[in-house]
Amino acid sequence: MDGRLRDDEVVVGGDARQRYYDSSGYGRPLEENRVALSRVEAAYLLFKGDMDSVVRDTPGSRPEADETRMGFREFLADAGDEIATRFLVYADLRDRGFYLSPAREGWVDAPRSNADFVVYPRGKGPWDDAVLYRVRVVGERADVPADELGDVVLAVVDEESEITYLETDRADLRGSSATDLPAGVPADLLDDRVLVWDPPEVLHHRGFYGQPLDDRDGDRDSALQLSLVEAAYLADDGVLSLGGGAETVRERGRAVEGERFDRRLRVYRALRERGVVPKTGFKFGSDFRTYADVESVEELGHSECLVRVLPADRVFSPRDLALDVRLAHGVRKRMIFALVGPNERITDWISVGRLTP
Amino acid sequence: MDGRLRDDEVVVGGDARQRYYDSSGYGRPLEENRVALSRVEAAYLLFKGDMDSVVRDTPGSRPEADETRMGFREFLADAGDEIATRFLVYADLRDRGFYLSPAREGWVDAPRSNADFVVYPRGKGPWDDAVLYRVRVVGERADVPADELGDVVLAVVDEESEITYLETDRADLRGSSATDLPAGVPADLLDDRVLVWDPPEVLHHRGFYGQPLDDRDGDRDSALQLSLVEAAYLADDGVLSLGGGAETVRERGRAVEGERFDRRLRVYRALRERGVVPKTGFKFGSDFRTYADVESVEELGHSECLVRVLPADRVFSPRDLALDVRLAHGVRKRMIFALVGPNERITDWISVGRLTP
Repeated sequence: MDGRLRDDEVVVGGDARQRYYDSSGYGRPLEENRVALSRVEAAYLLFKGDMDSVVRDTPGSRPEADETRMGFREFLADAGDEIATRFLVYADLRDRGFYLSPAREGWVDAPRSNADFVVYPRGKGPWDDAVLYRVRVVGERADVPADELGDVVLAVVDEESEITYLETDRADLRGSSATDLPAGVPADLLDDRVLVWDPPEVLHHRGFYGQPLDDRDGDRDSALQLSLVEAAYLADDGVLSLGGGAETVRERGRAVEGERFDRRLRVYRALRERGVVPKTGFKFGSDFRTYADVESVEELGHSECLVRVLPADRVFSPRDLALDVRLAHGVRKRMIFALVGPNERITDWISVGRLTP
Repeated sequence: MDGRLRDDEVVVGGDARQRYYDSSGYGRPLEENRVALSRVEAAYLLFKGDMDSVVRDTPGSRPEADETRMGFREFLADAGDEIATRFLVYADLRDRGFYLSPAREGWVDAPRSNADFVVYPRGKGPWDDAVLYRVRVVGERADVPADELGDVVLAVVDEESEITYLETDRADLRGSSATDLPAGVPADLLDDRVLVWDPPEVLHHRGFYGQPLDDRDGDRDSALQLSLVEAAYLADDGVLSLGGGAETVRERGRAVEGERFDRRLRVYRALRERGVVPKTGFKFGSDFRTYADVESVEELGHSECLVRVLPADRVFSPRDLALDVRLAHGVRKRMIFALVGPNERITDWISVGRLTP
């Protein structure tokens, strides 16, 4: 069977409606049992030998002329740069047993600009209402704006044409950690940390703030070292009393980290207010690791999430995303991106994880 | 016992030579059984209660005046920004049972500018010749130039004052992979990959070049997709024949990656010439993963290294280093940085790994 390429679609007649659409979920039905296939669908059918060739339907030319008859190789070269990566993802999902459609007007209801395909649950197709994934195809060198994530699966085609699926969702971090803290605890700013020489026990042992200076002995009287973020949060709330006040800590934070410090402090506060304890994620290359339910440091569980704080207009490189997600997966944590916009407003919490469709 | 702070050293008399140097490896001996301690050593002795106080030796002042007598807290605040992170690392290594000295003229032979401490093997001290580690102390926000690594242990103090040790070495990657390849195999450039429609079997199955387009069936006749780096290397060597030649592939590579493409191609070639097979490291967030001994793709072992290609003047952030090293450790691979200078000269191969002293 042959198709005819018109603009961006390949139109097939004969028993196409039954053969391609009804029984296998390809294309969208036209009048008179004809079907319109997207280029990617046509390429896959050619690749699988389920369509013989595509003829370019040029007005004024004789359609039966040999030079316009394209097999898979010619068709792919003809469409070329535009469909190569999408073809690979389409073929991979088809080979995994899914039906999927281009996320375009005419194919699906309410298409969104950030997706290329709509994937149906196994056993379902374009005639059903259910959608399993919205998939966006990107090459490994593409730019992926952070604010376009959250409801889409990224299918990243790497330079060797292997595909990595990254599921992105909106995340809602909540926990039950809460501690009543005293006020006016004296503290000193020292370089880029704050020292509490005579800390109330509750600060570290219940609230999991800071790190004892003399950690080895489990000494409860040890001086406590606080990070600048912890200290700025506690000083803002009146728990700490420092020369120069909370603003001195913020200024030091800005001096060593710039605006990033304000973004991190904003997210730190948001997490604490949600009952989640953030501690440094340095060993994992992120800003924070988080504990949802801290009763005391002696009974700490496994930290559940890694949080990276980013400006809301951040553009990801897929490789950096792959690195973060792979690491988080390896240490059994969820990877979360906290996006902070102008005026320190948190615009979104996005989780990104590996997906095997 | 009290010390006297003179310039940058704390001088202790009495039985100091026996008490601090001979029996415990602190300081450097002066005449008359006196010992000069660095500020960090003095801070640690004060912290441990092994020295009572330090008196500022100001010409013209009365040394016994109370306001010049400093305990640990006052001494640390006085030295402050300069020694805080170094104190933490010094204390950690002492607590682990090591003797160590400041890597300074007068303390050690041939001090190097890229190290802060010289650590002796357990049971050894400054009176021996053996050196276990040269340690450089950096805060997590410090800049670490790539070209200062390779013979030093980084002790990174994170914002919560925890320490991560990263061992850096020069790496020599060698393998036994080699394949005789045919010449003039036709190939097409398609977007940012190259397709070989009728590949000789040796190309993928023995040489591990490319990825079959139809991977699922183990189909040996499948077309082969090559990355731009693989294709540029093979075209340079005459194995591939493309319209426009090797230069067309390089140009496409530069168009999508800029100068990074040339650096990666340089390292790809170096690895192949050393008998090591590089494949994409995308899933690990790096440039390449490597296989030292490829006989055939059916008998592939575990890839041993992750290689990140960087310009030789790259300045690391310790957080990015921690991320790469943690990931590599989690997947049981060595993390290697290939540094490429001007004129595509590889200036160094640096391995970085976690260390527990």
